[in-house]
Amino acid sequence: MTTWGESHGGALGAVIDGCPPGITLDIPAIQADLDRRRPGQSDITTPRNEADKVEILSGLFEGKTLGSCLSLVIYNKDANPESYRNFKDLYRPSHADFTTEAKYGIRNWQGGGRASARETAARVAAGAVAKQVLRELAGITIVGWVDQVGQIKASVNPESVTLSDVESNIVRCPDINASESMLTLIRDVQKDGDTIGGVIRCVARGVPAGLGEPVFDKLEADLAKSMLSLPASKGFESGLGYASLGLKGSEHNDSFIQNIDGRVETNTNNSGGIQGGISNGMPITISVAFKPVATIFHAQETINNRGEKAEIKARGRHDPCVLPRAVPMVEAGVALVLADHLLRQRGIVGRL
Amino acid sequence: MTTWGESHGGALGAVIDGCPPGITLDIPAIQADLDRRRPGQSDITTPRNEADKVEILSGLFEGKTLGSCLSLVIYNKDANPESYRNFKDLYRPSHADFTTEAKYGIRNWQGGGRASARETAARVAAGAVAKQVLRELAGITIVGWVDQVGQIKASVNPESVTLSDVESNIVRCPDINASESMLTLIRDVQKDGDTIGGVIRCVARGVPAGLGEPVFDKLEADLAKSMLSLPASKGFESGLGYASLGLKGSEHNDSFIQNIDGRVETNTNNSGGIQGGISNGMPITISVAFKPVATIFHAQETINNRGEKAEIKARGRHDPCVLPRAVPMVEAGVALVLADHLLRQRGIVGRL
Amino acid sequence: MTTWGESHGGALGAVIDGCPPGITLDIPAIQADLDRRRPGQSDITTPRNEADKVEILSGLFEGKTLGSCLSLVIYNKDANPESYRNFKDLYRPSHADFTTEAKYGIRNWQGGGRASARETAARVAAGAVAKQVLRELAGITIVGWVDQVGQIKASVNPESVTLSDVESNIVRCPDINASESMLTLIRDVQKDGDTIGGVIRCVARGVPAGLGEPVFDKLEADLAKSMLSLPASKGFESGLGYASLGLKGSEHNDSFIQNIDGRVETNTNNSGGIQGGISNGMPITISVAFKPVATIFHAQETINNRGEKAEIKARGRHDPCVLPRAVPMVEAGVALVLADHLLRQRGIVGRL
Amino acid sequence: MTTWGESHGGALGAVIDGCPPGITLDIPAIQADLDRRRPGQSDITTPRNEADKVEILSGLFEGKTLGSCLSLVIYNKDANPESYRNFKDLYRPSHADFTTEAKYGIRNWQGGGRASARETAARVAAGAVAKQVLRELAGITIVGWVDQVGQIKASVNPESVTLSDVESNIVRCPDINASESMLTLIRDVQKDGDTIGGVIRCVARGVPAGLGEPVFDKLEADLAKSMLSLPASKGFESGLGYASLGLKGSEHNDSFIQNIDGRVETNTNNSGGIQGGISNGMPITISVAFKPVATIFHAQETINNRGEKAEIKARGRHDPCVLPRAVPMVEAGVALVLADHLLRQRGIVGRL
Repeated sequence: MTTWGESHGGALGAVIDGCPPGITLDIPAIQADLDRRRPGQSDITTPRNEADKVEILSGLFEGKTLGSCLSLVIYNKDANPESYRNFKDLYRPSHADFTTEAKYGIRNWQGGGRASARETAARVAAGAVAKQVLRELAGITIVGWVDQVGQIKASVNPESVTLSDVESNIVRCPDINASESMLTLIRDVQKDGDTIGGVIRCVARGVPAGLGEPVFDKLEADLAKSMLSLPASKGFESGLGYASLGLKGSEHNDSFIQNIDGRVETNTNNSGGIQGGISNGMPITISVAFKPVATIFHAQETINNRGEKAEIKARGRHDPCVLPRAVPMVEAGVALVLADHLLRQRGIVGRL
Repeated sequence: MTTWGESHGGALGAVIDGCPPGITLDIPAIQADLDRRRPGQSDITTPRNEADKVEILSGLFEGKTLGSCLSLVIYNKDANPESYRNFKDLYRPSHADFTTEAKYGIRNWQGGGRASARETAARVAAGAVAKQVLRELAGITIVGWVDQVGQIKASVNPESVTLSDVESNIVRCPDINASESMLTLIRDVQKDGDTIGGVIRCVARGVPAGLGEPVFDKLEADLAKSMLSLPASKGFESGLGYASLGLKGSEHNDSFIQNIDGRVETNTNNSGGIQGGISNGMPITISVAFKPVATIFHAQETINNRGEKAEIKARGRHDPCVLPRAVPMVEAGVALVLADHLLRQRGIVGRL
Repeated sequence: MTTWGESHGGALGAVIDGCPPGITLDIPAIQADLDRRRPGQSDITTPRNEADKVEILSGLFEGKTLGSCLSLVIYNKDANPESYRNFKDLYRPSHADFTTEAKYGIRNWQGGGRASARETAARVAAGAVAKQVLRELAGITIVGWVDQVGQIKASVNPESVTLSDVESNIVRCPDINASESMLTLIRDVQKDGDTIGGVIRCVARGVPAGLGEPVFDKLEADLAKSMLSLPASKGFESGLGYASLGLKGSEHNDSFIQNIDGRVETNTNNSGGIQGGISNGMPITISVAFKPVATIFHAQETINNRGEKAEIKARGRHDPCVLPRAVPMVEAGVALVLADHLLRQRGIVGRL
Repeated sequence: MTTWGESHGGALGAVIDGCPPGITLDIPAIQADLDRRRPGQSDITTPRNEADKVEILSGLFEGKTLGSCLSLVIYNKDANPESYRNFKDLYRPSHADFTTEAKYGIRNWQGGGRASARETAARVAAGAVAKQVLRELAGITIVGWVDQVGQIKASVNPESVTLSDVESNIVRCPDINASESMLTLIRDVQKDGDTIGGVIRCVARGVPAGLGEPVFDKLEADLAKSMLSLPASKGFESGLGYASLGLKGSEHNDSFIQNIDGRVETNTNNSGGIQGGISNGMPITISVAFKPVATIFHAQETINNRGEKAEIKARGRHDPCVLPRAVPMVEAGVALVLADHLLRQRGIVGRL
């Protein structure tokens, strides 16, 4: 899978190679994930108004995947590149303006160009295809949610949480008490022209044992890469993650048991469904930390591309907290990694 | 770069493709990193006695790299596969025995086979080559250290910490007070036949701005993958990581300044040297969480590969805390990622 | 670079990753190559009427490449999928209908689907970008021509042939005498409802010494792959190719000389500019054999997808000889390989 | 799969990643293929005396593949690097000395270094593993033979030729009359201190329909790349190849029939078992042209690395005709490509 497109160019897209043939694609379900990511969906997201309607230009025939490349396109409608002209020589703090110029010697100053989080629309669309592949081939389901905003932490059971729990509120936090505190915090931050970060957790249930490679392409290594490739993400945990530091080995180890169906399980899941880089059949649980987004409405000091001091103050349309819209991005990233490993594992042990 | 080899097979090795030509390799420096990883180096590491002498079988001519594949081999000397025979049908808790069998339908029960952390010897050797490439081509240096054991946290300045600070004690923690508490904790855990996890931090200084790709192969995405592919690692942070959740955007953003040499810098480094997935010239700082290792000397309940209940109690030679030996692994993982991106960037902007 | 799209779907496209930044793209030059490939350009090509106008949806800013993904799209206008409905259960002889179904279990029967040569429009567009990269970064130029149709062979000097020589006639054969005989042959074959194959030769001049890898990714290995991935191609030669069999080593070897500028050259070029898989600075010369295309207007015996015997007779719009339109495809394939190796070589020896 | 090693370094090796688990490896069969490639096997091959004994250092347990990396090593025994010292500043005509220096700025002058055909020992060993995978998973068999030496062509039926036919004479040409003429020609050339080229043909039987990708990784594209990555190869044909130019479409097309078992076949096999880049179940037939090898015992003019004119006359141990030893190389290259595509196809349609 690859994506293309800039924030304020004509369109964004994803090209998916290697999608198995004969899968009936549910296009409204793809659109539903795009709608969860789409700007303007609530009063705590940017008001940029993009319908983000996906079109599939190849790889589909009479509703089914052909096995050849799927090309998904989303046309930009509400692009407003001129609103960035004042910043075209400035390096916005903690944005990619300076690093992009350092890398390429050239930069599309219209809304972040390729570095814009708008790229994730294409990824969410591709991830929605991957989710359907996972469900059809292996019965795998993926649910993500906002688990923390600022210092407010939710309490959610990864074994039982559902999509409708998540979608019950605009924060996308299934712990209702926490979600209300989060909402208050986000609105306070928004009023102040500032931003706040948080944590998304995600669980994949129904993953068969055996996915992942033993050394470099460990399942959690590929999940970590996928998560850290999301804009503003700065941390990743698999299973207990940093919380495992408070435990001894004798407390952390998950004991194997045979359940009543004869399937191997563990009586705890501190490993988060992955041992030695390979899935063990238990739910896969990860967390991702998102820093507060860089665009704030406060005046900030910076320099321009001639090295001169300058002051900058954001205008335009921005999110006080990216977490609610990032839930489908995290799910998409998890789905794409699992689909790749599912197909790899078929290559290793499948029968023609 | 790829590696091969099992814990108790004949040898381990790494094959490095794409190493630039004409670099004079310092083989004692490679050996020095292997010695930092080697078992038996102190009384808090496994007593398995492997000299881990590296041999270079190809790619080197009259002391210089040829540009063609380097093949590095480390022969196993003190393998003792028979000590694992009692466990050959058992799934050790939180080890890769069950997942390996689920994946491949076959398993080398001798000391973890391919899943063994012994594989990292090859990676450390390859990483030591990458360090030399980075230093020779770009003046980049990398230093890792033990930053936390259990709940004991060190206080270390990533801008100034040196290799000799790290090597001043067997814990490899440059904060001497913390290192003594850590040592006490590790010895207590060891006496109890148990294990404990911790955090390694690592800094790369002298990295030029412009390394990393804007979307999928973000520098921190590749670093995260590299770190999560190390055995027992369960968490990753770039820059402030999870600590960024306590800050607002206005507090977290790093302001750009021009330093006295005319070089662009930031007055804080909360981003950890990476913005939009691309290096900005500031020190790159990451952290990795390692869970307590799975092999403990307590009796544990498990099942065998016929689903029957069984009790297991480790024998053999094991580490109470993998952290001190994992420092060169983390450095190697960082070096390999940076070397790849340095060469990619030369492909993008270099002149023939 | 990857492409997507089916013959009679909505659009075709190419996504180019890794194009160097800061190159001013000449879009009319891209269109000019598409026009050389386009159907309906003369009375010896299929009358399908596609303007094949290329649009660039990303990666370009104010006329220059950004370094991020270029997305090129060509919308299908004159698709006529219904003309294929009669063949939807039939396996057309020497087409990919049967093999596609064997591979995927599903097939888009509209004009060959993904197997259609229409895919090459996207490749020609991407190749035209690669040509501009090669010219701007290294002064490399590429010229292809029809060298043989059926048994009629041209005589062309690869050191001096020009694009305008090639474009002087609709066969694209710069040897005027041969081109007239070829034209007569193609028209005779066309009248008979049959098809004929031939050979395209191509030369790349100005290629610096040092491109290509010593073992697997030899320059001629990648050129061979690129050429054999073109529809209907069944043979490849580098340098003298099969003609080298008539020579002894003493006759075939190219002697090194120093030319008056101090540059190393060879006094013959039997190696076709590549030795040990790496360019030596002399013109790179290759040839590609194209079989007679499979679609003929004769009745043919075949079976349907239930194994029953059937007769088939093509309708629709087809070429009696694909060679004139295949010239820009071959050039594009050569350009894409050379551009990849030029950028790889910058990664190996370039300075940041 | 990758290989490493130089002609006169300590060892050569291959690392095979992705080999399916649970396959019982027949190590004598691997050795048998190495013996067919080995120098010194007859009076028409170089007298360099290498036993070429293969050792497997990882990936194998109790005789079976583990699914993790196989590491195969062949130690050099009869290396004689000093015999090349006289040539260390000279560019041998049509060798890779000049191009290697142009690429890397450094060169191992001992026997060609990485450019030496000795690298193919590792490839033959890896190919022998691939042959066993193909036979065990899909019943595929591969037979190659010398089909032409100089202008002497053999007549061989690809549907019925066997390994023992090929091994019946030291030329490895199953047409006994032709083989005798070839032997005479090779000996004449050898006496004259010269060299001669030729053609190897190869057939793969039992390949299921559906292997290969529709666009870039067409089966014949990957076969072409594999063949053109062999030293001294300069041409490739799939099916009729260049001979298809003498036919019209109506003569070249292969008609589909259903055989008595209900399997789809074609009544001719001009396509060589591949249509649209995907196998159709018929025997896959390819040819490879090898130029006369560059090392001759005649005096030749050249220049040294300071641009000065020089005369060169080979010494050392060389082959007058590489064809007999190249047969297992071609078979190995075909086997590796087919094994990759077999595993890819399992990823596409296999069931876990």
